Amino acid sequence: MIYYNHSDISSLEQRFRTNFVNSLSGFRSLNLIGTADLTNNENLAIFNSVFHVGANPAMLGMVIRPNGPEHGTLKNIISTKSFTINNVLKQFYKNAHQTSARYESSISEFTKCNLNSKYIDGFCAPFVAESSIQIGLILQEIIPIKANETTIIIGTIQHVFLNDLILKEDGFLDPMTAETITNCGLDAYYQCDLIARLSYAKPDLEIKLK
Amino acid sequence: MIYYNHSDISSLEQRFRTNFVNSLSGFRSLNLIGTADLTNNENLAIFNSVFHVGANPAMLGMVIRPNGPEHGTLKNIISTKSFTINNVLKQFYKNAHQTSARYESSISEFTKCNLNSKYIDGFCAPFVAESSIQIGLILQEIIPIKANETTIIIGTIQHVFLNDLILKEDGFLDPMTAETITNCGLDAYYQCDLIARLSYAKPDLEIKLK
Repeated sequence: MIYYNHSDISSLEQRFRTNFVNSLSGFRSLNLIGTADLTNNENLAIFNSVFHVGANPAMLGMVIRPNGPEHGTLKNIISTKSFTINNVLKQFYKNAHQTSARYESSISEFTKCNLNSKYIDGFCAPFVAESSIQIGLILQEIIPIKANETTIIIGTIQHVFLNDLILKEDGFLDPMTAETITNCGLDAYYQCDLIARLSYAKPDLEIKLK
Repeated sequence: MIYYNHSDISSLEQRFRTNFVNSLSGFRSLNLIGTADLTNNENLAIFNSVFHVGANPAMLGMVIRPNGPEHGTLKNIISTKSFTINNVLKQFYKNAHQTSARYESSISEFTKCNLNSKYIDGFCAPFVAESSIQIGLILQEIIPIKANETTIIIGTIQHVFLNDLILKEDGFLDPMTAETITNCGLDAYYQCDLIARLSYAKPDLEIKLK
């Protein structure tokens, strides 16, 4: 095996290091975050840091980098307290990737990247109409990470739209039916195949396929 | 599309809701977290909440639920300030899933789940010998989420072990060469196929395949 210690990693050339550290933790959730400012200028940004926080109340979190193109997302969430999380499908992954370009804040990534916004009454953040899972959240908590300039956003789920076939009998949302894809690092996109669903694990009980 | 609002989700039967909310955000990073207590009792727990925090200094974060079997992980990290993050391969995903059973704290999940621990000098947390990406971290920050009893742990990367072929020329760690798998929800495991790597996105420039 190759070995790197902390100072080996610090000494890596910057782009090499960014690729290296961003791909260390494996596959990542891939979503488009929709927001608007107080004058309804839309923003759409690709994120690979959404994580589960709790099921009751239903909450999701995500990490926002300090100076990236997703900075507009943070500003909009702070001012409107609203955002959407939308899954990425293979048929529009290039459009989703293009939202990471540094557009001016007055420009809508929906328009520039050929994706359609969808609005519902009483909620200012735009959903991605092409997504098969669309989640609307209100801001619950803003957590600055002291160690760098990164911010964690926690949102409470207010609205969920799903294509009908995705929901299974036990509440599981099948990501293959949803045609959700995943990513690794900054620019690699993957489609997935089910290996198996496994039974609930208990000590001294053999795991079964579901 | 089917629609659920906040109170629809709250009213769902508990297990159904847990499956539903846990699979909402799509595919998740899948890792085994290795720790030990001050008397070297080992602990190994499966996590699907590891996220990227920063590349320089290199930091990763993860979410720890309040009363789950991963509670031993949190206690050990607080007392020893050390933990490891190890990728999950298809050949041992059932063993990895079995670590989620509620074993007594004196029992090593390495032993019970047939995985081998690996130690290095000056670092008390065990790595998973079978993993092709093994990361050793020291505790950087503990962040309690106010909205529920969840805790976010931020760690700084100290040690990285990699199988030689995983590292590509530009620093990218190829998860398919690593044989890393992913998961969705609580119990569904997936293998992935590359769709494409894409060029850096800029306004008014067409994206190319890498």
